[in-house]
Amino acid sequence: MAGLVYIDRVAHIDLGVDERQFPGISGPMRFRPETAKPLNELAEVLLRGPHTLSRGERELIAAYVSGGNECDFCRDSHSAFAAAQLDGGAKVVDQVVSDPESAPISAKLRALLRIAAAVRVDGRSVTAEMMAAARDEGATDVEIHDTVLIAAAFCMYNRYVDGLATLTPDDPVAYEMSARRIVEHGYGA
Amino acid sequence: MAGLVYIDRVAHIDLGVDERQFPGISGPMRFRPETAKPLNELAEVLLRGPHTLSRGERELIAAYVSGGNECDFCRDSHSAFAAAQLDGGAKVVDQVVSDPESAPISAKLRALLRIAAAVRVDGRSVTAEMMAAARDEGATDVEIHDTVLIAAAFCMYNRYVDGLATLTPDDPVAYEMSARRIVEHGYGA
Repeated sequence: MAGLVYIDRVAHIDLGVDERQFPGISGPMRFRPETAKPLNELAEVLLRGPHTLSRGERELIAAYVSGGNECDFCRDSHSAFAAAQLDGGAKVVDQVVSDPESAPISAKLRALLRIAAAVRVDGRSVTAEMMAAARDEGATDVEIHDTVLIAAAFCMYNRYVDGLATLTPDDPVAYEMSARRIVEHGYGA
Repeated sequence: MAGLVYIDRVAHIDLGVDERQFPGISGPMRFRPETAKPLNELAEVLLRGPHTLSRGERELIAAYVSGGNECDFCRDSHSAFAAAQLDGGAKVVDQVVSDPESAPISAKLRALLRIAAAVRVDGRSVTAEMMAAARDEGATDVEIHDTVLIAAAFCMYNRYVDGLATLTPDDPVAYEMSARRIVEHGYGA
């Protein structure tokens, strides 16, 4: 990992690892493997399990929510994971993270991202109209359920990373390396 | 469950269950067992696994965060679970949920609840001073880590329940029944 530049931030607790080697969420996961196991399993099911939404589309929801929560580590990680698995790559991901309304994505995915944005703020801000709009574009109940849970889960992962103030790599290469690992081996490998 | 009164709310998706029988988070968990598994495992480790914080204290953190997020189902559920396992019972739980600063709890738990409150709003609002204050009261790194993750996790569970608008029992008996099941059998049983 020599040559990478990291944002200057010291974790709130002693994670027992070299944070330059285990930045972001990976330090706390090494510190507490008992909680890392279900956290990784949840990400694996939601973002990589069998689904009618592609892995790239689901990672895009994760990146978009993380961007809204301004969690740099999660936004850049899941942007890289989305870019590696989505038609259009990094360009489309960056467009979605900054403004999904004008990004070149399907009407269904745009309707799901509107639901994710509402969940991010407060679950109660999701409306029956948002649900109907997603259904009108062909979204299924499982797709809607998983969109809500992906958005909710990243409200957790984002707070976990930033609440412990873990190290956030500043070099895109770090995220591209992670993307290769996740695409090939999945979460928790 | 005859005789219970429920808040009038219709879930956003067809959960395939009688919501009066499976209210709150239990409906979505039946709908999607693949995600229910890690969600329950995470709750089991965080709230019931071996720990220097009692089960009652950890449930109290969950109830307090859910109260802050105004998720009635989670607040009332985890308040009941805390009351069933905490010295002082429901009276102390209600005091903590409404105002932890004046509640009769240990200085360490109060310092941890301040961290949980910050995580609930935004992970980045946790300060080094909050961490130092908790350590001064004897909090360990694992206790601090788990407080951050419990608070973060309930930002997920709360949004999951309210983002799907599931049924919320209005009768305390429903939560007491759940408390008996959780105390005896745990999450996911």
